[in-house]
Amino acid sequence: MSPSPGTQPGTLTGTLERVDASIDDALSRLFALLRIPSVSAQPEHAADCAAAARYLRDELLACGFDASIRDTPGHPMVVAHDLGATTGPHVLFYGHYDVQPVDPLALWKTAPFEPTLITTESGRVEITARGASDDKGQVMTFIEACRALRAQTGALPVRVSIILEGEEESGSDNLRPFLEQHREELRADIALICDTGMIAPDQPAITGSLRGLVGEEVTIEAARRDLHSGLYGNAARNPIECLCTILGTVRDADGRVTLPGFYDGIAVPPDGQRAAWRAIDPDDNGLLGPVGLAVPAGEAGFTALEQTWCRPSFEINGISGGYEGEGFKTVLPARATAKVSFRLVPGQDPERIRAAFRAHVNAALPSDCRARFTPHGGSKGIALPPDGPFMDAALGALSAEWAPNRAVVIGGGGSIPVVSDLREVLGMDTLLIGFALDDDRIHAPNEKYDLASFHKGIRAWVRVLDALAS
Amino acid sequence: MSPSPGTQPGTLTGTLERVDASIDDALSRLFALLRIPSVSAQPEHAADCAAAARYLRDELLACGFDASIRDTPGHPMVVAHDLGATTGPHVLFYGHYDVQPVDPLALWKTAPFEPTLITTESGRVEITARGASDDKGQVMTFIEACRALRAQTGALPVRVSIILEGEEESGSDNLRPFLEQHREELRADIALICDTGMIAPDQPAITGSLRGLVGEEVTIEAARRDLHSGLYGNAARNPIECLCTILGTVRDADGRVTLPGFYDGIAVPPDGQRAAWRAIDPDDNGLLGPVGLAVPAGEAGFTALEQTWCRPSFEINGISGGYEGEGFKTVLPARATAKVSFRLVPGQDPERIRAAFRAHVNAALPSDCRARFTPHGGSKGIALPPDGPFMDAALGALSAEWAPNRAVVIGGGGSIPVVSDLREVLGMDTLLIGFALDDDRIHAPNEKYDLASFHKGIRAWVRVLDALAS
Repeated sequence: MSPSPGTQPGTLTGTLERVDASIDDALSRLFALLRIPSVSAQPEHAADCAAAARYLRDELLACGFDASIRDTPGHPMVVAHDLGATTGPHVLFYGHYDVQPVDPLALWKTAPFEPTLITTESGRVEITARGASDDKGQVMTFIEACRALRAQTGALPVRVSIILEGEEESGSDNLRPFLEQHREELRADIALICDTGMIAPDQPAITGSLRGLVGEEVTIEAARRDLHSGLYGNAARNPIECLCTILGTVRDADGRVTLPGFYDGIAVPPDGQRAAWRAIDPDDNGLLGPVGLAVPAGEAGFTALEQTWCRPSFEINGISGGYEGEGFKTVLPARATAKVSFRLVPGQDPERIRAAFRAHVNAALPSDCRARFTPHGGSKGIALPPDGPFMDAALGALSAEWAPNRAVVIGGGGSIPVVSDLREVLGMDTLLIGFALDDDRIHAPNEKYDLASFHKGIRAWVRVLDALAS
Repeated sequence: MSPSPGTQPGTLTGTLERVDASIDDALSRLFALLRIPSVSAQPEHAADCAAAARYLRDELLACGFDASIRDTPGHPMVVAHDLGATTGPHVLFYGHYDVQPVDPLALWKTAPFEPTLITTESGRVEITARGASDDKGQVMTFIEACRALRAQTGALPVRVSIILEGEEESGSDNLRPFLEQHREELRADIALICDTGMIAPDQPAITGSLRGLVGEEVTIEAARRDLHSGLYGNAARNPIECLCTILGTVRDADGRVTLPGFYDGIAVPPDGQRAAWRAIDPDDNGLLGPVGLAVPAGEAGFTALEQTWCRPSFEINGISGGYEGEGFKTVLPARATAKVSFRLVPGQDPERIRAAFRAHVNAALPSDCRARFTPHGGSKGIALPPDGPFMDAALGALSAEWAPNRAVVIGGGGSIPVVSDLREVLGMDTLLIGFALDDDRIHAPNEKYDLASFHKGIRAWVRVLDALAS
């Protein structure tokens, strides 16, 4: 497919050249955003979240948008519009400016909020910082594309609205109410989200399905205070052991989740799709090899990519109890806590899964133990329409940027709950176009975003907006 | 049994009156020791451990002992002698001046190193501080008894040596080598240790058996870095889940440890002893009720006291992995760690149990996982001779102090590894005489020692030393 001609002859080439010429300035603006420690889950960073929102509002104003901060009961939203275009669809871009916590801090090689360019042995240049990939770097590819288009032509090729939230990494409690309160303002023809990845550094992808998420925290309590294991060990119930026994039986030895009804209503992808995915990573080494693993851990009979793209999972994301410091302490603690999550695929209901997990815990509780539960978000898995005019235009634009490699439609293992919210509240489908790589270490120490992802990501959005206009 | 007459008529009554008259001064000296945060497991408290040793040396010098600090590769020992007596046995008193860490600090109602007297609703006065019971308060009952005896009579009724170590709560790595290097200096006829408890506030006890301990830390590792559970969840091995599965199967549903050979070579106490113990706590409510529990958690068929006094146990003392902070983080961590321990009874070999645990872990490790182990001490369970002249004299002295209630011989659930070291290195048996209560919250927040334990404990040691002399 050849590049779309765009709204004005020569616009596309000129804009791409402008992106190339001003990449250092774009990088400086991204660095300024990365320096703001906008960790939404940690209350002490609330002011930093607000600062990140202000920074983005100001940048959007500078790009010619009508941009403003919108307060919520949590961290604020940034909303912006440039509705000057008279042709093509109206697009709503969604991103998030908040980031994950940084612990364990000791494992970072550079300060997480002091962005640093690191050149790898293979010559790739990496932007290293918390949020470099998830999602500040990706958000800025879109904003910089808008900046370049407007600077080159004085206008955007399509009507663009933008919403940037600050609670994606901590449950998005205020997003859906905000969408409901601003239906008319935010409704568009198609949503664009840049929070996903490519197949490889030289092959772009559009993510066609996403897993949902049920997050849950469970605390098991027994004695009313910590005990000495010499005085009470054997006779007093140990909440850590109880928690281990319960969590150790949520999956069986074949990796299948044992909760009743867990797999009800979900479909295995057609053979053709499975074959296409298998060709991407035939021996599982593409996904697992770079992180030092070899054997898919989940359900028998599915490849590693299938396990992450189309099968639900159970994960223990954190566990804590008793003495965790240096040395040893013969304590028999009063309580133990775990944070667990289920990744869901289309057909699974988050609240039914949550209830099944709680029932599993309560049924397995021995005498003298109590369980307390705290929900941490729930969203359905979602499948996006596999074709249509926007999808075709976007695939063409991405393929042009990475020619001769072609963009492909893949599955997504993560959860982007806003995609279901946008469909349910605003009736919109979403194109998930992102430039992250599997080795970006998102949510982990030393998160990075390739400079090439940032640079070609900006160019790709220029091409996509141009293609959508025609 | 009537009180022993002692070495000089009138000595005993006069000394006990002196103890009563000077209890406030004795309490002040204990408070000064409790203010020193001598947490041996935490390197930042090394200077505090040394300060506690110096304080005790100085107090022993003031009591007329030949006392000195003895350096070790770890925290120092305090050694003291008063060998002026010409009759009766030579006793070696052992105690420890180090204390457990204080976390979780937020649960303390008073500062852990600011000793405070608290009067309970029932009128009991409690000395609240870390180490109040384990073991500073107990150690000071013996030293104050020596002080009173010497002040009253100008001499001690028997030859007394004292060794106080500073690493009991962190593995006692340097104790056995020190005993071996100072065999001649430290050998005596009988050892005395004040680190155990009473049956009830009005009934004293001598502990006739102790459980040993195997401490072990296990870390499970999988991927070479933390992963995002969206990108990798299901396909990548989760070390927390692996750890839970492995630790959740060390005991079966009946509370029995499943390690092969775990129960080999151990004996159930004679029916007579079991019946006597059952009379102490017939419905398990005496041990379990005060901490909010009702049902013994260990092996079926044994009472709560039996489970702690004569049966081996498995405990998980700490667990840690993934995100443990506020909120939620969808991380799939690279590693998870647990600190576990086995309490052993006579007949079990610590290193065989350790090897069996490691074999259990390694056999259960799934693909892509590795286990690392760190040993945290090992000691055998020990049974002390149930009768003999020293035991009879001590039981009589304790019974006199708490008359008309009689002292009884009980089992001990905890580990005091020095008891085996004293037997193996110095060929000495030990009398375990202590005044702690089940609700002293040792190793836990708000540790306390009853003022009555402290006061009557001093008086009891006066009686015991007097009785041993005759």
